[in-house]
Amino acid sequence: MKYFFLFAHPEPELSYQAALLASGCAALEQAGHEVQVSNLYKMGFNPVASGADFPTRRFPDRLQYDREQKGAAAADQLADDVKAELAKVFWCDVFVMQFPLYWYSMPAIMKGWIDRVFVNSIVYGAGKRYESGGLKGRRAMVCTSTGAYEPMFRPDGLLGDMDRALWPIHNGILFYAGFQVLPPFVAWSPTHSDAATTEGYLSTYGERLLAAGETTPMAFHPTTDFGSDFRLKEGIAPRSAGHWRP
Amino acid sequence: MKYFFLFAHPEPELSYQAALLASGCAALEQAGHEVQVSNLYKMGFNPVASGADFPTRRFPDRLQYDREQKGAAAADQLADDVKAELAKVFWCDVFVMQFPLYWYSMPAIMKGWIDRVFVNSIVYGAGKRYESGGLKGRRAMVCTSTGAYEPMFRPDGLLGDMDRALWPIHNGILFYAGFQVLPPFVAWSPTHSDAATTEGYLSTYGERLLAAGETTPMAFHPTTDFGSDFRLKEGIAPRSAGHWRP
Repeated sequence: MKYFFLFAHPEPELSYQAALLASGCAALEQAGHEVQVSNLYKMGFNPVASGADFPTRRFPDRLQYDREQKGAAAADQLADDVKAELAKVFWCDVFVMQFPLYWYSMPAIMKGWIDRVFVNSIVYGAGKRYESGGLKGRRAMVCTSTGAYEPMFRPDGLLGDMDRALWPIHNGILFYAGFQVLPPFVAWSPTHSDAATTEGYLSTYGERLLAAGETTPMAFHPTTDFGSDFRLKEGIAPRSAGHWRP
Repeated sequence: MKYFFLFAHPEPELSYQAALLASGCAALEQAGHEVQVSNLYKMGFNPVASGADFPTRRFPDRLQYDREQKGAAAADQLADDVKAELAKVFWCDVFVMQFPLYWYSMPAIMKGWIDRVFVNSIVYGAGKRYESGGLKGRRAMVCTSTGAYEPMFRPDGLLGDMDRALWPIHNGILFYAGFQVLPPFVAWSPTHSDAATTEGYLSTYGERLLAAGETTPMAFHPTTDFGSDFRLKEGIAPRSAGHWRP
């Protein structure tokens, strides 16, 4: 299988996150899988969605970023870095977003990758969403690490349910774009853990990645659960948080 | 009162979001309030948290961003732009985060403002969180706009509850940093709305801002709801989504 890692850490080669990445990639390559990595800090990726992405504009008076994305896609005038990243994500079978949790979410450099690379009309829009999203047929998985201890991220924990923290990414980005979303891999507080724990994460991460093809995806609502009023059909209850926990 | 608007839109002066901002600021100034705005796109704000923020390092071998923030804060060596933004947020009584919703969250340029400006040891850390957060005594409010229609963001809507989409911002950033968090102001699908609706948003936004001092904040769990195990005390149920809706 083909794995594409989107990776963001301000210490792109020496951090514990970098060790996780190296360990995960090595496990996959040893098993004969293909791997590509976008190491965003190392690449100096530009995370700011702006008019600079469009040398020619459909609507020059007032920037409407998503409509310009659509126009640039149709005219094959997307920015070179956006094109290159799109090629990687369409190439892969498994898309891994790997980052340390910053303020309940991904670091800005990765959010900007999503803003710029998940292009309107290619990844979403014009009927492309959820099971019909542009990236359908692929699987995706978040790998993150926390400063906080695991119990703090339980439904009754100090920081609230990790599932709720990741919901905008899981449902709003990955499932929306068409991926089957696998349960996240979380390295809980590696800085405050002993060597056995942090080394354990390195090997279990490889195992989780190797199993990506057979892992049961998390359940989200496909568009067929909704009526023409965009509301859940009668008898279908909104999914609650926490369903991915073992 | 003193209002600080953190504003991000790639069309910083001509967009509908910019019109909302201008209208809100005008209403406040006419009523005698003081206003500051950080218009992030116009400022060319750097959203990438990196080692470049620390000319001298406590731990030169391996960047640990939060620990370097703490060191730089103690040595009064924070980056100039970070210092300037911190001064604005500490100056204000009401902090408004205003942005178009990009992938269930804020544009990357604003996420990077949070990553860089909400400095460890000043805003959070060392016991500073929730009601003891560094920005306690202030109020905060999200103002956003959507491409989607309002029913799509109901608990049973196609995109899930807007409250759940905003939870990482409301609880994980604003309440965590010490703010009392006011219900968000949402301009639903202004591009697909008639003039009466979009003009209506302009005036109701001003009213909502003027009422910020008296508006009942949303309910989140203060640290006193949790035991020494960081779990909710017996008899206290985890807050569910949707509680801010009228």
